[in-house]
Amino acid sequence: MSQQINSQIVLAKRPTGKPESANFRLEESAVPVPEDGQVLCKTIFLSLDPYMRGRMNSGKSYAPPVEVDEVMCGGTVGQVIESKYSGFSEGDFVVGYGGWQEFWVQQGKELKKVDPQLAPISTATGVLGMPGVTAYTGLLNIGQPKKGETVVVAAASGAVGSVVGQIARIKGARAVGIAGSAEKCKYVKEELGFDACVNHNSPEFAEALRTVCSEGIDVYFENVGGKVFETVSPLLNDFARIPVCGVISAYNATELPPGPNLTPLLMRDILVKRLTFRGFIVWDYATQEKEALTELANWIKAGKLHYREDIVDGIENAPEAFIGLFEGKNFGKLVIRVSS
Amino acid sequence: MSQQINSQIVLAKRPTGKPESANFRLEESAVPVPEDGQVLCKTIFLSLDPYMRGRMNSGKSYAPPVEVDEVMCGGTVGQVIESKYSGFSEGDFVVGYGGWQEFWVQQGKELKKVDPQLAPISTATGVLGMPGVTAYTGLLNIGQPKKGETVVVAAASGAVGSVVGQIARIKGARAVGIAGSAEKCKYVKEELGFDACVNHNSPEFAEALRTVCSEGIDVYFENVGGKVFETVSPLLNDFARIPVCGVISAYNATELPPGPNLTPLLMRDILVKRLTFRGFIVWDYATQEKEALTELANWIKAGKLHYREDIVDGIENAPEAFIGLFEGKNFGKLVIRVSS
Repeated sequence: MSQQINSQIVLAKRPTGKPESANFRLEESAVPVPEDGQVLCKTIFLSLDPYMRGRMNSGKSYAPPVEVDEVMCGGTVGQVIESKYSGFSEGDFVVGYGGWQEFWVQQGKELKKVDPQLAPISTATGVLGMPGVTAYTGLLNIGQPKKGETVVVAAASGAVGSVVGQIARIKGARAVGIAGSAEKCKYVKEELGFDACVNHNSPEFAEALRTVCSEGIDVYFENVGGKVFETVSPLLNDFARIPVCGVISAYNATELPPGPNLTPLLMRDILVKRLTFRGFIVWDYATQEKEALTELANWIKAGKLHYREDIVDGIENAPEAFIGLFEGKNFGKLVIRVSS
Repeated sequence: MSQQINSQIVLAKRPTGKPESANFRLEESAVPVPEDGQVLCKTIFLSLDPYMRGRMNSGKSYAPPVEVDEVMCGGTVGQVIESKYSGFSEGDFVVGYGGWQEFWVQQGKELKKVDPQLAPISTATGVLGMPGVTAYTGLLNIGQPKKGETVVVAAASGAVGSVVGQIARIKGARAVGIAGSAEKCKYVKEELGFDACVNHNSPEFAEALRTVCSEGIDVYFENVGGKVFETVSPLLNDFARIPVCGVISAYNATELPPGPNLTPLLMRDILVKRLTFRGFIVWDYATQEKEALTELANWIKAGKLHYREDIVDGIENAPEAFIGLFEGKNFGKLVIRVSS
């Protein structure tokens, strides 16, 4: 093993605004050696997700930042090469937090086994991984959709949004998606079975959303913010619930948008309409992970839950694919195939 | 009765911004005659509350507006003059929704008896009325203060804020008040027993608040908004709860404050700190009213809950007193003594 090389993408410098190629650097290092209790894994799939933008900043967030010259963080699916932990053997498929590199070492107790019979192993980074559990726990705990209610979700063709809308329908609610192109909207309606989907890049966006939400919005699953939120906001019904899962529109902002300051309007809406806004992170519902994964797998098996992956080959292409996430270039859950 | 005159304050014209004398008009009309099922009451106390500002607008809110030339709405405590409802007799003390006038007629089933032995009847507009129940239900259902947590409330010497802080202490939390003068802060600390109180009109407000909330803020009971909210916001702890009861700073606004637009910052905070904002109105917890009033009365009897009233004599002085509410001129629950 020791002759083999580990290609890695490190954080070259912190971005100001939108990430660009210069923020990343491809490096080669020796394949790491596992110590007692650790497992050496070969990365097969690397998950690329919007939250990683936050980790590139030095500021305090809900998790510590990636340091400059450190390997970029990220969820990974791989195969065990060498195990010094009793729970795993060579050849096992596992999901862990290996980062943007070809090989990683992690404490065995932090890894989870992946069953390749259940679904393609790449889904452990998507519908049967963090994004799926995020959609499940946020929608059901905070959104609490009821039969006949209208649930709206942006980035509806993405890893989280696609699952949110489909669970809403499973629970008897209407699902309305928002996506960034006519092609994505078509997919959301025809393949994922949403009741409607509107294109936020169309000049008729606001009117179209109002039309398909003729009885208002009861749950808005927030993962975008900005203009989309401002368009959704006047349509919110009394007692609407807004799980706040992400604000991708703000991740790259270097300054606040110009005025007026809309916060007093938002506070007034919260009061008058008795809205509930609650932020959450998937870890907050760690005790529900097993339940969520079981339910999600059952729905896939029953043909009720569909997913789409946008697979890009090669660790060296991770930076460009990641940058595209913030331009809506991906179509489905973005995954890097690091090795086969 | 029919010779007697009913002095009333009507809405003369809708305000633009801050209410002023010209928005009100004193009128005289005949004392109304109750029909079957109705009760004629003589107003003893009229409650003046910030929410009334919202009713002076024509726009949609959680309740219909007062129409121009109509009597201003408001909670009242009075004595039954004539009853055509089996539940009440002449001489009974009742609390109802009589508005800004000397006599009112209301459906008997909408009135509630007030026990003058329990506490001064004026408290039925304050600590043992809508403001007390608002504080109780909002703090306990949404704020959910836990032992050792820090609860912050603005307008801490007012009808709602004073009760919020005292209940927080009864539940084992630290209570920090925000008020508009050194005199009010002294009262909040010394008479109401808050752990601390800071003056939002002092140039050291932000620093003082940070000092007395050295372990952050777990519950912020929002009834003010604006500058106070912006000062509280950075001190909120992870998983803080913000019951939104009012935004008095915005009630008179004719335009939005200048930029930058701080909403993206707020959404980011909601996400990263997993905050919960929930708006509520006392009616939302109607089923808890009895429980709340019983608890509040018990706490008063046990000497654990103190209150202060700012009583102004004469219905003709209601407009000026009401205008003063938005300038922080009242000190304690503002009540008009309409008759004795």
